[in-house]
Amino acid sequence: MNKTKALVLTNGLYHTSDAKTAHGLVRGSDRFNIVGIIDDASHDGKDAGVCLDGIHRDIPIYGTLSKALESVPDAAVLIIGVATVGGILPASMLALIKTAIEHRLSIVNGLHDYLNERADLVALANQYQVSLTDIRQPKKRADLHFFTGDIFKLKTPIVAVIGMDCAMGKRTTARLLKQACAQEQIKAEMIYTGQTGWLQGNDYGFIFDSTLNDFVSGELEHAILKCHAEAKPDIIFLEGQSALRNPSGPCGLELLISGNAKYVVLVFAPKRVYFDNEPHWGKIPSVASEIAIIEQFGAKVIALAMNTEGCSHEEALAIQADMQPAFNMPILLPIQTGVEVLVPTLKALLA
Amino acid sequence: MNKTKALVLTNGLYHTSDAKTAHGLVRGSDRFNIVGIIDDASHDGKDAGVCLDGIHRDIPIYGTLSKALESVPDAAVLIIGVATVGGILPASMLALIKTAIEHRLSIVNGLHDYLNERADLVALANQYQVSLTDIRQPKKRADLHFFTGDIFKLKTPIVAVIGMDCAMGKRTTARLLKQACAQEQIKAEMIYTGQTGWLQGNDYGFIFDSTLNDFVSGELEHAILKCHAEAKPDIIFLEGQSALRNPSGPCGLELLISGNAKYVVLVFAPKRVYFDNEPHWGKIPSVASEIAIIEQFGAKVIALAMNTEGCSHEEALAIQADMQPAFNMPILLPIQTGVEVLVPTLKALLA
Repeated sequence: MNKTKALVLTNGLYHTSDAKTAHGLVRGSDRFNIVGIIDDASHDGKDAGVCLDGIHRDIPIYGTLSKALESVPDAAVLIIGVATVGGILPASMLALIKTAIEHRLSIVNGLHDYLNERADLVALANQYQVSLTDIRQPKKRADLHFFTGDIFKLKTPIVAVIGMDCAMGKRTTARLLKQACAQEQIKAEMIYTGQTGWLQGNDYGFIFDSTLNDFVSGELEHAILKCHAEAKPDIIFLEGQSALRNPSGPCGLELLISGNAKYVVLVFAPKRVYFDNEPHWGKIPSVASEIAIIEQFGAKVIALAMNTEGCSHEEALAIQADMQPAFNMPILLPIQTGVEVLVPTLKALLA
Repeated sequence: MNKTKALVLTNGLYHTSDAKTAHGLVRGSDRFNIVGIIDDASHDGKDAGVCLDGIHRDIPIYGTLSKALESVPDAAVLIIGVATVGGILPASMLALIKTAIEHRLSIVNGLHDYLNERADLVALANQYQVSLTDIRQPKKRADLHFFTGDIFKLKTPIVAVIGMDCAMGKRTTARLLKQACAQEQIKAEMIYTGQTGWLQGNDYGFIFDSTLNDFVSGELEHAILKCHAEAKPDIIFLEGQSALRNPSGPCGLELLISGNAKYVVLVFAPKRVYFDNEPHWGKIPSVASEIAIIEQFGAKVIALAMNTEGCSHEEALAIQADMQPAFNMPILLPIQTGVEVLVPTLKALLA
């Protein structure tokens, strides 16, 4: 794919989890060539990769849009890379977006606040002949699919990457698994279920949280079947959203039941105590109890994947070693040591 | 509540499960006074209640709209009481709707095909000064609620009425439980999650399947908290949708986790084999396995409720007797023998 040069707007929030989308793009995108982050003056000049996880990625952070455009005058797209309060576009971002349009950047927006519903932006975009893409805008009713049951005819192994909470690394783990397969000449596809998954260049999927509940199962099935028909992968990964027991939006059953995922990679963070770090939302239950539930839904957990937030590297290894006897499956540290150790298991699924 | 006189359009489908909404309305509505069903000529003159379950309800079936209006000239509303192929309004129904508008009937529509998006109907309704209500039209983004976690402060017992499949009698069972409570001076409210629940006059709820997935938990929580704040019930029933493991739309976790329902009444149909009677969607699992899953989600199943489709009365009683030893809870036959036997259990929850 020819990758379009894109800047990512994080509006001062790059060092927070609100910039999860930007972080995913910095880790990698097959759809866009990320040439800079527009954050704020205090981080101007730093490398976005180094700030994220210590790994240099040659993606500068700029304090302002004009500095970015001086460095990368041929950037063609501005991606909104942060969640904002209430999901609304604040005035400061709107002003910057207008300036970007005037510099002939198309805008890609994943917030619930749609650019295409702002007449002034639409007019401006038309004037400068750039596009406004609202990833989260729900599809028209006529374009939505109902579940058919054809998923049950599919023989391709389907692995759901689900997690014990939101913002765990589900998408990143799925992406690494897809890449590990590719390196072994296993044709793997990932069904994206969120905006970042699409931004990263996955071709098949849908925006889960922007889908009317009536159509979630049908849209998921349709994406999987379309992927199978067109790409003919040997294995399909499903990107999980939220967690089975996160009260702000329990999610995962659709992947197991409607997506007919018979295998699961379960992502957990040993140092995270509460759902979304909100004490009143309750403690995250045990990994063992989650495995028990998943198995009752007819799927087999084939690996755990640890999100090591709050852990030193040594601590993470110690936790991995501590846990291993209780779990008869690989415990991955995807960011630190990769996911390749799971490849033999995945190969066995293809047989 | 002053009940508006309403006719229900079933367009020849009254004797099928597509007329589930009409059946619910015939059973009872606190919002509308149902004065007739418009079905087709072959059932003209029959009583809708007798056709449904043998119980006369003084609701005639009419073959045509004009016959209905001759009998009930002061009908004020026409309710679309059937699901249609693809959820679309067919030409025959549109023609009838226009005639109804010209006779000054407001129209209430639960299909995904919205009246308010048809310019000709909107103009006609304006001309005749009647309203067009599209129950399934999604709320505007600004009117949707995110989950807050305040649900966990609520002490009122919450009972989710969930089922092993779609079209089981979840709503009817919840309604009967609400009425049984009222008869015992227990103030009970039911949170509706589908259009029929609203049509039947429940004040608090939302249309689950027409809600963007991101807001389901928040809308549910909001409805429960609003119900608590305004009606101050002693007990709250949640109307389940679909089933936990129905692949066309697994549903129920939101009620247990986001709705914080600690108690469950589980509806099952011993004679139904496949989800939605679709063999390729898989066999409905066992009641025992469903109870085990529900308990792992932190809720207690306090009763089973049997849908006796396909059973004679004797058969139903025999199945109930057969099952009882294996389940340490009441097994209700809601339609045949009511739900009052559960009242002591419900009273105990209030203590």
